[in-house]
Amino acid sequence: MTRTVLSSASKEIVIGFDVPFVVIGERINPTGRKLLAAEMKEGDYSRVEADALAQVRAGAQMLDINAGIPMADEPRILAECIQLVQGLTDTPLAIDSSIVEALEAGLSVYKGKPLVNSVTGEDEVLERVLPLVAKYGAAVVAISNDETGISEDPDERYAVAKKIVERAEDFGIPRADVVVDPLVMPVGAMDSAGTSALNLIRRLRNELGVNTTCGASNVSFGLPNRHHMNAAFLSMAIGAGMTSAITNPLHDPEMAAVRGADVVMGHDPHCKTWIKAYREPVAESEGRGGRRGGRRRRTG
Amino acid sequence: MTRTVLSSASKEIVIGFDVPFVVIGERINPTGRKLLAAEMKEGDYSRVEADALAQVRAGAQMLDINAGIPMADEPRILAECIQLVQGLTDTPLAIDSSIVEALEAGLSVYKGKPLVNSVTGEDEVLERVLPLVAKYGAAVVAISNDETGISEDPDERYAVAKKIVERAEDFGIPRADVVVDPLVMPVGAMDSAGTSALNLIRRLRNELGVNTTCGASNVSFGLPNRHHMNAAFLSMAIGAGMTSAITNPLHDPEMAAVRGADVVMGHDPHCKTWIKAYREPVAESEGRGGRRGGRRRRTG
Repeated sequence: MTRTVLSSASKEIVIGFDVPFVVIGERINPTGRKLLAAEMKEGDYSRVEADALAQVRAGAQMLDINAGIPMADEPRILAECIQLVQGLTDTPLAIDSSIVEALEAGLSVYKGKPLVNSVTGEDEVLERVLPLVAKYGAAVVAISNDETGISEDPDERYAVAKKIVERAEDFGIPRADVVVDPLVMPVGAMDSAGTSALNLIRRLRNELGVNTTCGASNVSFGLPNRHHMNAAFLSMAIGAGMTSAITNPLHDPEMAAVRGADVVMGHDPHCKTWIKAYREPVAESEGRGGRRGGRRRRTG
Repeated sequence: MTRTVLSSASKEIVIGFDVPFVVIGERINPTGRKLLAAEMKEGDYSRVEADALAQVRAGAQMLDINAGIPMADEPRILAECIQLVQGLTDTPLAIDSSIVEALEAGLSVYKGKPLVNSVTGEDEVLERVLPLVAKYGAAVVAISNDETGISEDPDERYAVAKKIVERAEDFGIPRADVVVDPLVMPVGAMDSAGTSALNLIRRLRNELGVNTTCGASNVSFGLPNRHHMNAAFLSMAIGAGMTSAITNPLHDPEMAAVRGADVVMGHDPHCKTWIKAYREPVAESEGRGGRRGGRRRRTG
């Protein structure tokens, strides 16, 4: 059984085939959030704090921390945010940057075992990121693209994932600590995107034996009613073997899709998590019931 | 490719592995609907009419017609409702009764090729229902229980389904005209209910080569927020190969789960059906957007 164990100073969580799906909260990311970017650049982390707490309350088992702000001191800001969030919550973190110096700054202050987000199959990136992951005993998200870009051919994306896993093993990083992102394409752009993704997830699990993750909202890019498309995809991906996703835990359709899929997979014994999340009497009008239930602070 | 072709006088629909999932509207059923039962018994079919039209508008590709009212003349009422609904809409119908005389009354007035709902694996039922299905050239829902009841063992349920398919072939009913209901157990009652159902659906498709259906709402029995649990299950069941369900098309989470799964399976080319259903600009608050989109009369 492939189990990716992540931790903070005081709490462990597991990504794995036989445990509940892990939602990695994506909100602490200034990309496309101008106000947050401006505040973070000025050292105002009040929104980072609020986002951290809200995501944990909403059910995120991990939080992704990204400080990618143009013309800012990303390594310093990332390290400061990590220290801040680790002081607020015991939720394990993903350290998210495309800049190796920022990853190292984050890793150097992190308490516990984080998830490094991410490494690609590009040789230069592999040679710079994997030694860091090994040095700090972290786990890593492996994105299945390489120098040639993102292949539309799922076999090629599988091959890139396999290459990253093997290279990681050369650096002493066990396969269980490589969480592969198969790169889900928008279904609105390519009719085969969904089945490709599901097949790739199955292969990554059954043949390569790795945990998987994805940015779940990409699948619905360009379509109306995106949350329900994301929800359908998430449930199906979990059915195919996906074990984590980087997504927004404040969105109720997605969270209900994840929690429901956990129940269907037998990963929520006696439906405890489901019932805790939704036990308020729900009106027949489910839309409202679902939203209320999903956003309510858990009391149990 | 297993294709179950159903028809009305003027319209054909197909249940199959490579086509959109078929939602069979369940609303025209007096069980648990006291007012409808009382009206139907008195020959007032105004609610039957309204339910038929509303379900077709909401996206049902077939309608189930049930007239099971205690102490009423079920064969006559069922036949009258079928004639009425066939006069209102060209949607193919499922003729739903546990009384053979009612099935025959319905079959004798039906125009086109209906789905008989249902036959079980009980020998006496098989011997009475299958000749009727054969005589009228109908298709039939095969419920995988027999004299011993509903087995908790999915292997036994598979065996019952196989027995029904083989007995149907003895009567000249092709395998493609037997749509198996694997009997999905409530996930709240048994942690393995979901995985059992998904595995059984996969086997029925891959080994027995049949189309499948289910009463989708049974899965969430006893749980809060049932619609979102049904939705998660439906998406996953479609991912596992389920090809139809008897459900309420007026419930938006379930319909979004079905339409989203069709997109992910590549059965909604260019997302045409998805976009048609949801193309209204949806507010960032998806809960509302989803409900509005789902209930809106289609304009295209």
